[in-house]
Amino acid sequence: MNSAADRHIYLDSAASTPVADEVIAEMLPYMKQQYGNPSSIHKFGRETTRGMQLARKRVADLIGASPREITFTSGGTEADNLAIKGVAISAKDSGKSRIITSSIEHDAVLEPCRDLEQMGFKVTYLPVTEEGMVRPSDLRDAMAKDVALVSIMYANNEIGTIQPVMELAKIAHEAEALFHADAVQATGKIPIDVKNLGIDLMSMSSHKIQGPKGVGALYVRAGVKLSPILHGGGQEASLRSGTENVPGIVGFGKACQLATEKMEEYRLYVSELRDYLVDEVASEIPHSRLNGSQTDRIPNNAHFTFFGVNGEDLIIKLDENGIAASTGSACSVKKQKQSHVLKAMGFSYEEITGSLRLSLGMQNTREEMDVAVAALAEIVSELRQLSPFKSKYA
Amino acid sequence: MNSAADRHIYLDSAASTPVADEVIAEMLPYMKQQYGNPSSIHKFGRETTRGMQLARKRVADLIGASPREITFTSGGTEADNLAIKGVAISAKDSGKSRIITSSIEHDAVLEPCRDLEQMGFKVTYLPVTEEGMVRPSDLRDAMAKDVALVSIMYANNEIGTIQPVMELAKIAHEAEALFHADAVQATGKIPIDVKNLGIDLMSMSSHKIQGPKGVGALYVRAGVKLSPILHGGGQEASLRSGTENVPGIVGFGKACQLATEKMEEYRLYVSELRDYLVDEVASEIPHSRLNGSQTDRIPNNAHFTFFGVNGEDLIIKLDENGIAASTGSACSVKKQKQSHVLKAMGFSYEEITGSLRLSLGMQNTREEMDVAVAALAEIVSELRQLSPFKSKYA
Repeated sequence: MNSAADRHIYLDSAASTPVADEVIAEMLPYMKQQYGNPSSIHKFGRETTRGMQLARKRVADLIGASPREITFTSGGTEADNLAIKGVAISAKDSGKSRIITSSIEHDAVLEPCRDLEQMGFKVTYLPVTEEGMVRPSDLRDAMAKDVALVSIMYANNEIGTIQPVMELAKIAHEAEALFHADAVQATGKIPIDVKNLGIDLMSMSSHKIQGPKGVGALYVRAGVKLSPILHGGGQEASLRSGTENVPGIVGFGKACQLATEKMEEYRLYVSELRDYLVDEVASEIPHSRLNGSQTDRIPNNAHFTFFGVNGEDLIIKLDENGIAASTGSACSVKKQKQSHVLKAMGFSYEEITGSLRLSLGMQNTREEMDVAVAALAEIVSELRQLSPFKSKYA
Repeated sequence: MNSAADRHIYLDSAASTPVADEVIAEMLPYMKQQYGNPSSIHKFGRETTRGMQLARKRVADLIGASPREITFTSGGTEADNLAIKGVAISAKDSGKSRIITSSIEHDAVLEPCRDLEQMGFKVTYLPVTEEGMVRPSDLRDAMAKDVALVSIMYANNEIGTIQPVMELAKIAHEAEALFHADAVQATGKIPIDVKNLGIDLMSMSSHKIQGPKGVGALYVRAGVKLSPILHGGGQEASLRSGTENVPGIVGFGKACQLATEKMEEYRLYVSELRDYLVDEVASEIPHSRLNGSQTDRIPNNAHFTFFGVNGEDLIIKLDENGIAASTGSACSVKKQKQSHVLKAMGFSYEEITGSLRLSLGMQNTREEMDVAVAALAEIVSELRQLSPFKSKYA
């Protein structure tokens, strides 16, 4: 089994991805030659402004928006914070003081909501089904005149379930609330048309789609008002101050262009590989289960429970055997926090403890799936021998 | 004069700088090979964590801090926002609701202060001398029990004047307030020892010292409490959520290491070049004046007034002749806002209108200074011919 350690197999593309060569190639000139500050009116400033304009168009094109509706940020977390706090603070004077979100959002949505609660705002956290789906009827029941914003993630970062975004947005609009989607895990992986879906604000991240870390964007539908959270020089039409991360923005733009061009190729390749992985796990590893929706799911996500096993032990053993995996969201692993997503789905302690997320990318191969499943089968079996539930699963 | 346009001369290093080759070389592996999410516990995550640890040490070493006192941000603006809003919101419960700052701060300090005023905080804006210096006696007179934070920039971005930071910090501490310095223009250019100076919080930016754009840091002295402004996964000891910009952070760390090693070389080379430029302007261009402090000044800044000339026209003409310059802060140029710095220094409308900032870097040469002064002399003379004050200066 140790031969696998010679070359690591990366099955954590939901956490981060390698930057594509074409992306790096477009970034480099903006570090060495076109290094001006976009706010400068001389040649060096104009060059960087042109680079950002192209990037803005490419990001907009990926999601059916117009370039002026794209605000660049330092990443998905800042985009979520800007959407949620920006709308809440802007709506305060109009008497709207409630936000509705779901109980399975990323911390980048939940934590700003908790901060707003400290400031006197009200937040409603919707439950989900055992597949991690928000029920439109629950949202309809929760809507009221004081709701400023409904924020529901497009696809979940742990279990990959895709929400009925179009229907949820419609319900929000019927009650004159805005609709925000954290689309960090969905952008570039499935076709998204913000106009058709009726999304008002949408968060995106570059490093999840082979762009560089440290850059993301918030789609803000023309006409939507929000307050900035970073104040200063007034960049990004005063929505986001600070010298623009030009090489990062250019790289993100290129990653979006590649995602637009290769979306179908990506979907076919990655979902077939994922389905193969899921089938192999099902046939090779007893007492295992695929979690999340079987149908409404992003192509690169597979999330399992291996009963009688601790997921933490599993990823450490997999790592020793040259395989990079995750129990769930990267952010929560180090804090050893139990997944709030799986809890909200009604999972038992045992079901949560035995969970493992394998997320794929274009760099993965079928051979890697075979190596990973073989290692996984052996490690799960070993760990079950050590488990107090040994007699039940071993 | 047009021959100069063949190769542009960049005299706007205070706005942004080219990324050093050594910096790019250290960043690239973190895009292509070590692309993990630092929150992941597997090999890919540990590699990026190690890269960040080294960077944190290098940033800390540049300013005499310890690594755990460095919080990485998306840039200087975010660092300023975090320092000012973070301290203000954290101090609110203790009954301290006032901030003292100066009237010549960067917008990244002034705008968060204005936002805090909207939220009910009080802000005192100190005046400055005609050299742009904050008088310690003015700060002492303004201190009161309700002051949570004194925020005075280390060196001014337009005129380069260095403030008496040690004395100002001492006055703040005597009244039990914290002291923050926006050191975006000073870091890496002059020796800074935060412990010796008594600084509690200090903002830094990477792209001003040949590091990449999109990254910066806030020094937060151990023991200082502040509230985060970006909420989410709890990265950077919960002070700054969001997946870390690993390649950017690694690059910033390398730029800090280079700055530490080459500080004396930089100071000698750039200040000699700057002094030569200043002398040449004085001898070649009548009715011109160097603004700011003649002695307490960062090595790379030269800020002039050319009487009877419009600075905007000057930078456009200089650009046509292959020379990149600025009237003042890059951020305010496009907004065509009159410099609040020069206004606070008591400059007349004419003195402000005729202002030009030339800021230098290691890439500049004495020959470039000669070309720039010759072009400047010719353009100033031309523009004065067109001026209503023609008889006065031409």
